[in-house]
Amino acid sequence: MKLHTYYRSSASYRVRIALNLKGLEAEHLPVHLTRDGGEQFLAKFRATNPAALVPVLEDGSERIAQSLAIIEYLDERYPESPLLPASAADRAWVRQIALAIACDIHPLNNLRVLKYLTGPIGLSEEQKQTWIRHWIDLGLQALESRLATSPRRGAFCFGDRPTLADCCLVPQLFNAERFGMALDAYPTLRRIEQACNILKAFQNAHPANQPDAE
Amino acid sequence: MKLHTYYRSSASYRVRIALNLKGLEAEHLPVHLTRDGGEQFLAKFRATNPAALVPVLEDGSERIAQSLAIIEYLDERYPESPLLPASAADRAWVRQIALAIACDIHPLNNLRVLKYLTGPIGLSEEQKQTWIRHWIDLGLQALESRLATSPRRGAFCFGDRPTLADCCLVPQLFNAERFGMALDAYPTLRRIEQACNILKAFQNAHPANQPDAE
Repeated sequence: MKLHTYYRSSASYRVRIALNLKGLEAEHLPVHLTRDGGEQFLAKFRATNPAALVPVLEDGSERIAQSLAIIEYLDERYPESPLLPASAADRAWVRQIALAIACDIHPLNNLRVLKYLTGPIGLSEEQKQTWIRHWIDLGLQALESRLATSPRRGAFCFGDRPTLADCCLVPQLFNAERFGMALDAYPTLRRIEQACNILKAFQNAHPANQPDAE
Repeated sequence: MKLHTYYRSSASYRVRIALNLKGLEAEHLPVHLTRDGGEQFLAKFRATNPAALVPVLEDGSERIAQSLAIIEYLDERYPESPLLPASAADRAWVRQIALAIACDIHPLNNLRVLKYLTGPIGLSEEQKQTWIRHWIDLGLQALESRLATSPRRGAFCFGDRPTLADCCLVPQLFNAERFGMALDAYPTLRRIEQACNILKAFQNAHPANQPDAE
């Protein structure tokens, strides 16, 4: 397998964690999102993903975009060390946490949106920071509330083994910290983050530990 | 089952289509997103979903948020009339289309984001329209390119039966048209939309046909 990835991309980070948790190897093909105006916009990469976004997984002749589609694919195609629980209700719980991050938080703060805000929209750096913090705080407040009160939560988002939800949570918290946010208001999320980051699968997926890290 | 829904919410619309395609009934509990500052912010609704977003599905004691988590749940719990194909690779194809809409287009143009742009950020109505069209066009261009060239496409996004991908595509195109966008540049997407909207399942899920429509 091959993974088109960028070290600091939150969505690529999710897939790297999932691959590691499942003990799967993929050759990394770095796509530098800011060099020369962004390598994701080159015709060569667009042929792989017309949306010009990482990550993309290549498995044989398949080219799969969208981090959550990739992780679900890996879990179905390589069922060992499952990243989703067994019952429909438990799976829904895990997916709703993953999607709360992938749909409600991350899309508002990724590189292309921030560039559009400070470019065509003309926001100042300070306004951009306010925007970032607003959406991250709103999303994390809801997640903290949901996780703090759920009997499904264990050391991880669901029980005592990492799932798809943790694959999404850890990169989102990394992002929040990169933007200089204090996470004191989210003790449950932080405890889960700590439980994850003890594990080699999460450590090896960390942006700082990628071959294309700067 | 009960569905907390708002007639014009794109994410609620997705779930209504899925329920109809599967022949499932759910009592509709309307949540008016703009009346009295937004019924989703009331303590009563927040107890159901701390993120203050629709839709939420209640099935017995389960309360599931996030439209894609709900649809996957319905498909696993009530397997008749599946909304995902059988093979892992085909499922990944369908999911990546659904997620390209749910993560890359819709989150940038939903009500709370548009309100924040014209409120705290101070965009004019015209700037807001430019923002909306920018992200919808960017997302639909990638989808048109992906679908126009794929051997997996049939009358619908995948083959000749509607799937999760169509549940997401039709509400997104409805949204684009509501914002006054011409869709001539997306002939493949429009053909799929037409194939869907012939079906009762899609017609009955349309915002105009909801009890809470205004």
